[in-house]
Amino acid sequence: QIDSARLWGSIHETAQFGATSKGGVRRLTLSREDKQVRDWFRKACEDAGLEVHTDALGSQFGLRKGRDMSKLPVGIGSHLDTQPTGGKYDGILGTLGALEVIRTLNDAGIETEAPICIVNWTNEEGSRFAPAMMASAAYVGDFTTDDILSRKDIDGTTVGQALDSIGYRGDKPVGFLKLGCFVELHIEQGPILEAEGKTIGVVDSGQGVLWYDGKISGFESHAGSTPMPLRRDALATLSEIVLAMEAIAKKHGPNAVGTIGEAVIAKPSRNVIPGEIAFTMDCRSADGAIMDALDRDLRAAIAEIAARRKVEVKIDLVWRKAPTHFDPKLIAAVENAAKTLGYSSRRITSGAGHDACNLNTIMPAAMVFVPCKDGVSHNELEDATQPDCAAGTNVLMHTVLAVAGV
Amino acid sequence: QIDSARLWGSIHETAQFGATSKGGVRRLTLSREDKQVRDWFRKACEDAGLEVHTDALGSQFGLRKGRDMSKLPVGIGSHLDTQPTGGKYDGILGTLGALEVIRTLNDAGIETEAPICIVNWTNEEGSRFAPAMMASAAYVGDFTTDDILSRKDIDGTTVGQALDSIGYRGDKPVGFLKLGCFVELHIEQGPILEAEGKTIGVVDSGQGVLWYDGKISGFESHAGSTPMPLRRDALATLSEIVLAMEAIAKKHGPNAVGTIGEAVIAKPSRNVIPGEIAFTMDCRSADGAIMDALDRDLRAAIAEIAARRKVEVKIDLVWRKAPTHFDPKLIAAVENAAKTLGYSSRRITSGAGHDACNLNTIMPAAMVFVPCKDGVSHNELEDATQPDCAAGTNVLMHTVLAVAGV
Ligand SMILES: NC(=O)NCCC(=O)O
Ligand SMILES: NC(=O)NCCC(=O)O
Repeated sequence: QIDSARLWGSIHETAQFGATSKGGVRRLTLSREDKQVRDWFRKACEDAGLEVHTDALGSQFGLRKGRDMSKLPVGIGSHLDTQPTGGKYDGILGTLGALEVIRTLNDAGIETEAPICIVNWTNEEGSRFAPAMMASAAYVGDFTTDDILSRKDIDGTTVGQALDSIGYRGDKPVGFLKLGCFVELHIEQGPILEAEGKTIGVVDSGQGVLWYDGKISGFESHAGSTPMPLRRDALATLSEIVLAMEAIAKKHGPNAVGTIGEAVIAKPSRNVIPGEIAFTMDCRSADGAIMDALDRDLRAAIAEIAARRKVEVKIDLVWRKAPTHFDPKLIAAVENAAKTLGYSSRRITSGAGHDACNLNTIMPAAMVFVPCKDGVSHNELEDATQPDCAAGTNVLMHTVLAVAGV
Repeated sequence: QIDSARLWGSIHETAQFGATSKGGVRRLTLSREDKQVRDWFRKACEDAGLEVHTDALGSQFGLRKGRDMSKLPVGIGSHLDTQPTGGKYDGILGTLGALEVIRTLNDAGIETEAPICIVNWTNEEGSRFAPAMMASAAYVGDFTTDDILSRKDIDGTTVGQALDSIGYRGDKPVGFLKLGCFVELHIEQGPILEAEGKTIGVVDSGQGVLWYDGKISGFESHAGSTPMPLRRDALATLSEIVLAMEAIAKKHGPNAVGTIGEAVIAKPSRNVIPGEIAFTMDCRSADGAIMDALDRDLRAAIAEIAARRKVEVKIDLVWRKAPTHFDPKLIAAVENAAKTLGYSSRRITSGAGHDACNLNTIMPAAMVFVPCKDGVSHNELEDATQPDCAAGTNVLMHTVLAVAGV
């Protein structure tokens, strides 16, 4: 059994880095606050006797030796960056839970057969730099390191510049450390476990993701003197797109969601009809065929709206992540650990993307979910209970022991 | 006849202050560019022998003596501030046209019975500080000077601070100079004159205006893991409001318009359902009863949308300007001047608000419109021809001569 109080203490100690007034965390990837939590994590890893490395994209690796160093390490961990208005658990539970597993094994003097490696992946959230789960995507070869280093945030700062500015461009090439498998603990970020009173979610699959950049070019004109029928209003166009996206996601539901999270009117003024809007779209489904249907329906709806309103709408697919089907043997190991420990559990699909989904494309991977209050995440009010966090960490530890061998 | 080339030269000379790459002007009220054009205007007035004054809200007055100084001056002019992406004519034609009238009378050695006063009103556009036509509203007593001085722009700068920063908080109290009447020359900012091939619009009325500040409070949550039916999406709510506003304006049309020109998502992120949006609304009609109906229908639609989506929407009416009915004698004077000069003309309603609409509440006022290309205004592509600008200025001059007496 892990030390629940110590885990809880670590979560709340690191929550100070980027703490918001509403009890959440604002710790955008590669920001000053991210540097603070990275420094904390490196020191904690060193204090736990781990060999710490940082790769060229800033991901942190803490390696615990195994009896058989010819075996590939069992990877566990998650991320420490947050959304602009994020919570204290998303990513953090999985990273500090992994640290807690190491501390517990150290205290108990348990040596494993295979090494164990705990990881803090850079930019899982994707809100400062696209795509999300950026560093693990590069790790599995979906993008080159140079491509990722050149990605820009909204202010034009590149990933490379941001890494340098906080001193976290590591000396190890991306992929330097081969993992044998990866298990990630995370809060569910959805309402199912709580609603059904289950403690552990045995994650067997994850939704695929489509991310688009969009731009609407209408025509700016006077709000008072331009008759309604002559308008080419970019905001009215966006409004139809938002509602079309909602309707399309519902039509393909329940296994589909669609969101427009960002929309910026260029040079807005109260008495000017908006002429130009930049926006982004996020569509997901656990079913590849539904993803294709979402894409097709969305493009058709946008084309119709643009033509009817005599407005130009450009859509760029900037990221496509296929649905994830986790490794059956690892899924069974998680399920078995939950059962052995006496926790109620159910199989579940992840609505959110996770680094484990990327890793699963080149190695066996799986995930452990615990409930979060009202299913709320990406919100400062995100919450989870100490017993649930401890339960998930225990399941993680028992899964690791089963896989690494004692 | 005024000097068409000199007028055209002044318009294009001052267009350098805030010139944009697309041929427009960005000269927000009380900005550095606004100071430049004010300095130019003051010097031009002094060179034309006018007595120049600046009031406590920065409006500039250039007084030309009349034979009978017991008579109240005939006011002419407009404004020199522009929209964030404005054109070279909106307000500028009326102000520099007034200057051109003075220059022409000087050259011809014509003395008038009543004095003439040319005016550059502060913040007509209303895009930096609300309401629009701010200084003329204070002049007629709709707001106190102190109230207006405390209005803030989006960065929190007050009108008072902005005036001080460019040295244009004048020593004269607002209203220090009583005008006997006011005539404003302006581009139409709409498509009617051009479509009908008329040179002069004899403006007999102006639309009333409703300005609202709005705020939507939904709930931020994860774009991937929050099922569609559980969302409280602020952007989807705004989208319905935008389309409802459009439908309501069309329903009450053709004598009604409605626009949402500003909408800002708080802390946006690609994979977060928008939780909070601030927006503004602009509704207009020349008919007071339709204005009331627009307000009623809009509030009802918003209440229904908010309740259905379980989202809070707050609406604040921050400005209500009743429809304007200009002075019949002055309207006739404008119409007569156009006829005498041989220009085609028609009666017209102003879609935009103007300082003349404010002044009309305490003195006889009227306006002269000239066509603008494709009816486009509040856009960098705003355009008007030299002959039309000259024609409008000639009508302005002949109206002034008729009213002031020669
Ligand atoms: N787990 C999580 O919130 N990931 C962020 C990436 C995404 O799914 O949008
Ligand atoms: N004439 C003009 O564009 N005025 C700005 C105020 C408004 O009508 O919105």
